[in-house]
Amino acid sequence: MIVEQIAVGTEILLGNIVNTNAQFIAEQLAVLGNDCFYQNVVGDNREHIKACVQTAAGRSDCILLTGGLGTTNDDVTKEAVAEYLGREVVTDENGVSVIEGSQVLLNVNGSAPGFIVEDKDKSIILLPGRPGEMKPLFMKYIIPYFTTKMSSVIVSKMVKLCGLDENEVEEQIKDLVAIQSNPTVAPYAKTGEVHIRVTAKAESRKAADIIINPIITELKKRLGMYVYSTEENVTLETAVVDLLVANNLTVSTVESCTGGLVAGRLINVPGVSDVYKMGHITYSNHAKRHLLGVSKSSIDKNTAVSAEVAEEMAKGGFAATKADVIISVTGLAGPDGGTQDKPVGLVYIGCNVKGKVKVKECHFKGDRMRIRESAVTEALNFMRLCVLEYYSEVTFGK
Amino acid sequence: MIVEQIAVGTEILLGNIVNTNAQFIAEQLAVLGNDCFYQNVVGDNREHIKACVQTAAGRSDCILLTGGLGTTNDDVTKEAVAEYLGREVVTDENGVSVIEGSQVLLNVNGSAPGFIVEDKDKSIILLPGRPGEMKPLFMKYIIPYFTTKMSSVIVSKMVKLCGLDENEVEEQIKDLVAIQSNPTVAPYAKTGEVHIRVTAKAESRKAADIIINPIITELKKRLGMYVYSTEENVTLETAVVDLLVANNLTVSTVESCTGGLVAGRLINVPGVSDVYKMGHITYSNHAKRHLLGVSKSSIDKNTAVSAEVAEEMAKGGFAATKADVIISVTGLAGPDGGTQDKPVGLVYIGCNVKGKVKVKECHFKGDRMRIRESAVTEALNFMRLCVLEYYSEVTFGK
Repeated sequence: MIVEQIAVGTEILLGNIVNTNAQFIAEQLAVLGNDCFYQNVVGDNREHIKACVQTAAGRSDCILLTGGLGTTNDDVTKEAVAEYLGREVVTDENGVSVIEGSQVLLNVNGSAPGFIVEDKDKSIILLPGRPGEMKPLFMKYIIPYFTTKMSSVIVSKMVKLCGLDENEVEEQIKDLVAIQSNPTVAPYAKTGEVHIRVTAKAESRKAADIIINPIITELKKRLGMYVYSTEENVTLETAVVDLLVANNLTVSTVESCTGGLVAGRLINVPGVSDVYKMGHITYSNHAKRHLLGVSKSSIDKNTAVSAEVAEEMAKGGFAATKADVIISVTGLAGPDGGTQDKPVGLVYIGCNVKGKVKVKECHFKGDRMRIRESAVTEALNFMRLCVLEYYSEVTFGK
Repeated sequence: MIVEQIAVGTEILLGNIVNTNAQFIAEQLAVLGNDCFYQNVVGDNREHIKACVQTAAGRSDCILLTGGLGTTNDDVTKEAVAEYLGREVVTDENGVSVIEGSQVLLNVNGSAPGFIVEDKDKSIILLPGRPGEMKPLFMKYIIPYFTTKMSSVIVSKMVKLCGLDENEVEEQIKDLVAIQSNPTVAPYAKTGEVHIRVTAKAESRKAADIIINPIITELKKRLGMYVYSTEENVTLETAVVDLLVANNLTVSTVESCTGGLVAGRLINVPGVSDVYKMGHITYSNHAKRHLLGVSKSSIDKNTAVSAEVAEEMAKGGFAATKADVIISVTGLAGPDGGTQDKPVGLVYIGCNVKGKVKVKECHFKGDRMRIRESAVTEALNFMRLCVLEYYSEVTFGK
């Protein structure tokens, strides 16, 4: 099927926000075996939306609009589509304003639902613009909708890895990417991670699996311990928590520059209460000393952003919280405070597994938020690798 | 001038990369006072590019294409535009392949130059797709090009608020939104926040300010303490940190369900070290008791998700960290653990300003991540309001 995206939002046209929805949807549509030749952005303007839908309908089978579904006067996507189709916007039995004859997609994360409208041989899909509302609706309703329209099955599996950059991954798998037939192998760079999607088209799920599985095995063999999951919905933090649970380990976090974000990601995993003991946010030197017993002499001699302090934090966290695993982070997120010796982006991550401490020095690029996010991802992966090493013959780094 | 962007690149249509160029260019175009009604993405396909240029030329004065200018067979933007214009691609005196009659924009960061082509009353601009090449060319050649064409300026200001939802804001300002002339007033809903953009077109920056400023004053008057900033680049956490600095207050965080994310947002503010004392992540009952001295009887009687425990956390954090302000959060982020009395999404936020404690009960919707993010935003704003109340006659809530 030929599918065309239309993002509705004057804030995109004004450059207030990046249209990240487009990438998410494009990736999903490609996996589902659809063709996409055009993407559009249009403002919160009824006539412009109608014009855009008209153009798209002339060249695509399905039009997927995002945004402009709220209840303010600005939000006119529903009205524009209804007008284009010559249908009414009516109030349904639940008091919700809907396009006549449409399937209503219940949105538990927001106030405005989504819609699927079929009209002759075309379908028009309307989804909310906020990613936190759009994505769950896409996964719950739109993927099954496209799946029912397909004659063959498209099956896609993911190899998710952390600890290698995009170029390193590409170098190791370029022969597999080059084939580009059935299955296709496509790497996607994420913040601090690389995801490799393997997609096959076949008559049945089983036939697709037979095409895909040898490639997955080969990728895991080549990329080794950097692979943290081959499950689509397993995040890095879920993989870390699963590993801790499997080894019956508790964890505590002690963070300086990441200031609670490592804990924040771990605690996003339901059931983390089985392993997460407690966390200390020791952004100031006073807090590092007071809560973790980091020595004044060590801070004076090495500064707070040093391998020594990361190690003392990991040891002090162990003494203070009695958890089996401690992850510590100290670094310079900027924008100020960098020196020639210790530039902005320098981060030390310590990990203590039952008394065995390792420290990693990292250099991250970007603004304050980007450096902190990179440090969080690296810290989670470092903890994963340290635990793996503790329980196996695997070794990595220094 | 009406300007329309066309990004060329199959990798965008496949979702391999996010089209971040679009935001950069859109923002620059808006600042330069251009109108942008549509953005487009098209693949590396000569016919599709021509079709896109044709559509754009029917509704815009200037078409700005990015990408597809390299030397591989995939790169056909130049050829497609030349074909659309009925011009030749020729080799110039420097051996560079150029569109006949175009201005060539020297690209020191890459191999392919950009172009400006004027044709009757339209202009077509071609820039490379890589941000590291596109942005310098935009700054060096495109901004001066537009500046010479400008007759008016567009100025836009933002009123940012937290604590009212989109519908409540809409209700209070609908008469201002309805005018939709000069200036325009447009509310944007963000997670837990509403931003109102006021935009005016005028002969000069000063003339635009004269149009905008009375509306900003009126919005501040109507929305009162819910307005946390009228600066485009001031986030809620920046406003909170500024307020703490202004009142010479230190702060500590004690978090259960948000697990470090309140601290994480505060610490995203450069210079937060002046006010941030330390943080405790007390996700388990053990940690609440051990680190904050929450009483076993209170947890047994009220459960950990209760106004009583939020209050004890805010008091215990005060005793443990000696900060002037403590923000505490305890709640049920789900997906499991909800009951009829205490459903998923129930969150209690406590704030202790120099011994004066307030607790707020909140009910958030959505998945685990969404509930936690809503709680973080609400906690930051609750802290802001509690501090404002402490230092003034303003009162809010219970």
